[in-house]
Amino acid sequence: MLKLYGFDVSNYYNMIKLAMALKGIDYEAVMTYPNQTPEYLAISPTGKVPALQTDQGVLVETNVILEYLDEISPQAPLYPTEPFAKAKVKELVKLIELYIELPARRCHTEAFWGVPVDDITKKEVKRALFNGVQALARAADFSPYIAGDTLTAADIMLLYSMDLAAPVAKKLFDVDLYEHAPGSKALMTKLKEMPEVQQIETDKRAAAPAFNAYLKKALGSK
Amino acid sequence: MLKLYGFDVSNYYNMIKLAMALKGIDYEAVMTYPNQTPEYLAISPTGKVPALQTDQGVLVETNVILEYLDEISPQAPLYPTEPFAKAKVKELVKLIELYIELPARRCHTEAFWGVPVDDITKKEVKRALFNGVQALARAADFSPYIAGDTLTAADIMLLYSMDLAAPVAKKLFDVDLYEHAPGSKALMTKLKEMPEVQQIETDKRAAAPAFNAYLKKALGSK
Repeated sequence: MLKLYGFDVSNYYNMIKLAMALKGIDYEAVMTYPNQTPEYLAISPTGKVPALQTDQGVLVETNVILEYLDEISPQAPLYPTEPFAKAKVKELVKLIELYIELPARRCHTEAFWGVPVDDITKKEVKRALFNGVQALARAADFSPYIAGDTLTAADIMLLYSMDLAAPVAKKLFDVDLYEHAPGSKALMTKLKEMPEVQQIETDKRAAAPAFNAYLKKALGSK
Repeated sequence: MLKLYGFDVSNYYNMIKLAMALKGIDYEAVMTYPNQTPEYLAISPTGKVPALQTDQGVLVETNVILEYLDEISPQAPLYPTEPFAKAKVKELVKLIELYIELPARRCHTEAFWGVPVDDITKKEVKRALFNGVQALARAADFSPYIAGDTLTAADIMLLYSMDLAAPVAKKLFDVDLYEHAPGSKALMTKLKEMPEVQQIETDKRAAAPAFNAYLKKALGSK
């Protein structure tokens, strides 16, 4: 059986969790915070989560895992089969991760836990997020899903990236990312109505106290 | 016919150029520096290069373009067809881009053009590169290629990423990235012996003076 390493508060872990739920794939969840122990580095080369253990070995990086799951489990497809349409979905996934989620992540300690970020970083991130959301607006359809009338991996990436990036942009820069990508707010609302997404949110809330305690200890020990 | 936007000094552009050469795909090269004009933003949503114009529309992001080219032109495959093996190559491509090329890029103006980078960024990048190259060493085979005995897209990503990242690590941090990923140096040497790679290097050298003049003007006007 597939084993999924990660924890219920991680936005990337929850992307895989949602894909698994939509596809009806059984797996064993192995509760793991990112770490650099030799044991975990032997599983995940970066020490990050999620990591997916298969019979053939381990895979890391969320988009890679999503594409793999789509190949081994074609039901509830997350990518079109036609090459150009498939590439477009991958492009949208990448644009959201690289130009929205990852810049916002550089400031998320300040937005969520009050651990300050330096001004140089904030200036860079503000500009990157502004450019990123505009790139997304140019590339995305939002009709109603990002890539058209069907839910794809790009919607999963959006859901759990904007949940991190929008609060960062709002709290630190007083910028409403949704305003810059018309249609994105309505799509987020639609996605959050999905029962699978609501279950993941329930699990996240249940796991939050333990994660916050872990984090407090980790940040305090630095 | 496919149109490829970019310029001969760009490492990401050259990844696509190499894939095109290996596969024997005809295309029209449209000399383009990254820019934020409305005209180019209508083609490339981020304003970056490379961008590939197809009959069905434009694709951006190098790994997305590489995967698309591999689907429409199966000769000289850059990815295995078996799902897990294919995912492994995509994982390696992503690890190199995200944890080696992109961190190094944040310091490349200082390493290549003497435009200083702040100390906070340098500290972050040094740590990121050190972690990144160790993650690569854990994930890669180098036997002799990154993913085993066949050249894949991961070798193309390595070739043009290390060409940027290794000088950054050496000049700014006195770190030899190759030493931390045993087998990588021998692979780089092997890749650079390929006639297609040598042609791209020749084109790069020919294009460098014009790009340097453009850059000097762009940096000077800031």
